[in-house]
Amino acid sequence: MRCEIVAIGTELLLGQIVDSNSAWMGEQLALSGIDSYYQVKVGDNHRRIVDTLKLALARSDAVICCGGLGPTQDDITREAIAEVMGVSLVRDDAMGARIRHMFESRGRSMPENNLRQAELPQGARFIAEMPGTAPGLVCPVGAQVIYAVPGVPSEMRAMMMGTILPDLRSRSGETSVIRSRVLRTWGQSESGLAEMLAEHMRRLDESGRATLAFQASGIEGIKVRITVKAPDEGAARALLETEDRIVSDLLGKYVFGRDRETMESVVLLGLRQRGLTLALAESATAGHIGLRLSARDEAEGVFRGGVILGDGDLQTRLLGVAVAKVPDAETAAALAAAVRREAGVDIGLSTCAIDDRTPVPGLRPGTVFIGIATAEGARTETVQLPGDRARIREYAVISALNALRQKVLT
Amino acid sequence: MRCEIVAIGTELLLGQIVDSNSAWMGEQLALSGIDSYYQVKVGDNHRRIVDTLKLALARSDAVICCGGLGPTQDDITREAIAEVMGVSLVRDDAMGARIRHMFESRGRSMPENNLRQAELPQGARFIAEMPGTAPGLVCPVGAQVIYAVPGVPSEMRAMMMGTILPDLRSRSGETSVIRSRVLRTWGQSESGLAEMLAEHMRRLDESGRATLAFQASGIEGIKVRITVKAPDEGAARALLETEDRIVSDLLGKYVFGRDRETMESVVLLGLRQRGLTLALAESATAGHIGLRLSARDEAEGVFRGGVILGDGDLQTRLLGVAVAKVPDAETAAALAAAVRREAGVDIGLSTCAIDDRTPVPGLRPGTVFIGIATAEGARTETVQLPGDRARIREYAVISALNALRQKVLT
Repeated sequence: MRCEIVAIGTELLLGQIVDSNSAWMGEQLALSGIDSYYQVKVGDNHRRIVDTLKLALARSDAVICCGGLGPTQDDITREAIAEVMGVSLVRDDAMGARIRHMFESRGRSMPENNLRQAELPQGARFIAEMPGTAPGLVCPVGAQVIYAVPGVPSEMRAMMMGTILPDLRSRSGETSVIRSRVLRTWGQSESGLAEMLAEHMRRLDESGRATLAFQASGIEGIKVRITVKAPDEGAARALLETEDRIVSDLLGKYVFGRDRETMESVVLLGLRQRGLTLALAESATAGHIGLRLSARDEAEGVFRGGVILGDGDLQTRLLGVAVAKVPDAETAAALAAAVRREAGVDIGLSTCAIDDRTPVPGLRPGTVFIGIATAEGARTETVQLPGDRARIREYAVISALNALRQKVLT
Repeated sequence: MRCEIVAIGTELLLGQIVDSNSAWMGEQLALSGIDSYYQVKVGDNHRRIVDTLKLALARSDAVICCGGLGPTQDDITREAIAEVMGVSLVRDDAMGARIRHMFESRGRSMPENNLRQAELPQGARFIAEMPGTAPGLVCPVGAQVIYAVPGVPSEMRAMMMGTILPDLRSRSGETSVIRSRVLRTWGQSESGLAEMLAEHMRRLDESGRATLAFQASGIEGIKVRITVKAPDEGAARALLETEDRIVSDLLGKYVFGRDRETMESVVLLGLRQRGLTLALAESATAGHIGLRLSARDEAEGVFRGGVILGDGDLQTRLLGVAVAKVPDAETAAALAAAVRREAGVDIGLSTCAIDDRTPVPGLRPGTVFIGIATAEGARTETVQLPGDRARIREYAVISALNALRQKVLT
């Protein structure tokens, strides 16, 4: 089963928008076992959209069009598909009434233009999921099919998951269930992880029970995706559980979470479960840890805030810690202990670093000192991070949270 | 002149990487007056790359291939182009020696595989710019041309700017110079800006002297791009200056910077020029302002740090400001004054907000209070921001910096 993706919109060609939709759709197709050999961007031009769709049908079994379903005269995906199908557009009155109602329920009157969105090629049907005012389409072309979804990512995703992927899989005659899970890791390189899993991967290659794939994700760490194929949902889930257990055991402390979990959600949840509160003294990370923590609902009642230390004597004024000529492990420990005391919390976490603006003989830029203060006292960890200042800072955020996770929460 | 972009790499189809290179290249082509009607992603498959290149040459004058120039067996762009040209690959010994030297100068020995990168189709030439170990290619195909550049963004960009765009423009017979400048704005909607510029844009339409385009860029504000075309560099520069003056006058206080300037760079530079220091009390923005400021070199000596206020009584403990039941303008003023005093700086900036977790009768979530304390006392500004909590927080960052800019720096 081959499916081509066609992203429609002149703004994509002009680079005003980066086409991240196609990447997401490509990933979902791959996870469903469907091949995607070509992905094309084309502008809002009737002739070129029609040519692109015809070519796609000549080399693939199915096509997903993304974009050009809005209410304006620029939005011509419906017309182009109708031409490819050799039919005309008809207006669906029920859909027209539904769109009108969506406007009115928000206290707005519907511009007449929006009725264009209630049109569809004869023989096509609307996609059931409809989070916005643009309905998606399923358009049969003989034994083949063209799907059309809006370019708004949340609307596109709902239609992909709810209708298009199941429809493609049933067309491909695939009755088995493909499921995957991501193990989130931090602190080990991709080749290091691969080495730890080498023997198990050889066994999986032989048995075909599951596949493992690595995805380096910058400051989100390296993701290990486990994918299984099974006759039904229950069997798939059981296989995933088994594989998760084996891989987690092999990778040990490097695994910090699964799927949508992040380093900060894991740390916050761990603190909450233990009834612990946290405050920060951020020099190397300049507010980045605070920002990431407070973006999560799990921060409520756990994260009390902290101090950002820029140039100057703020750490003396607010925390009573003398400004050292060169930051070191002792400074990190003192900052963590001081912010713990001044904020009246259970745990103080601090970061300070040697950066490229103030070179220190014998210490490379990227040396980051992490301080962790608890009721038992203050400990420090020193890490050496690669890259430029921005990258060192980002890596320092996750390194600090990971140190807290390993020293306090495990 | 039409130029098609072909991005090569199975990882692009699988969604492991988002193809932002094509978007950037599309933007550069548009700015150079070159049309790009199609942009295609194709995997590392010889037959499909060859077919894609042939199709591209059938409908465009030029093609830029991006990716697949590395040293491994997966990297087959060179072979595919040679087939399309109907020639064979030859090894360039001088390039081979150059690549070997690049490795050795970094104290590493060159894997023999890398000699593949010294190969090129007969009749092709290397692109002069070569920031990495992968040389780019200019490959004539009759009167048409295929360029090949590596997928590493910095290498691709250097080759585009240095060789490909000038070559395309000379092929198109275009001798005039196209230049553009971006005015950065904050605080007015796209339609609002369009209205303020409507009459001037009508005059430009008639004279053809310049074009204006709007680009909504989320928390970066709305960019107004001025593009001019002139016989030479000097004339283009003069036209840009004139247009900049007219448009800036029409938009007044909404313009905060130009081109690579950001809200934070403008604020930091303004503070530095006046010899002022700054500290923050961030409740609504949770460290985000500190993070953005300290990421800039201009922060040195100006930005002293600040306090992140999470749940709890940190503002009382560190700043002596009582925790109000409901944040209001008075709280914002008190926080700004307190952080100014405690940090011993010239200016205190604070944010606090009504968020969706603690609904307040009569006040919508997204109400953000900004406090600015100077030697003359503390003032506040209240803004109403749209969206969910994450978006409100991001907009609050720029709103606060913009308030500081307008109240202290103009």
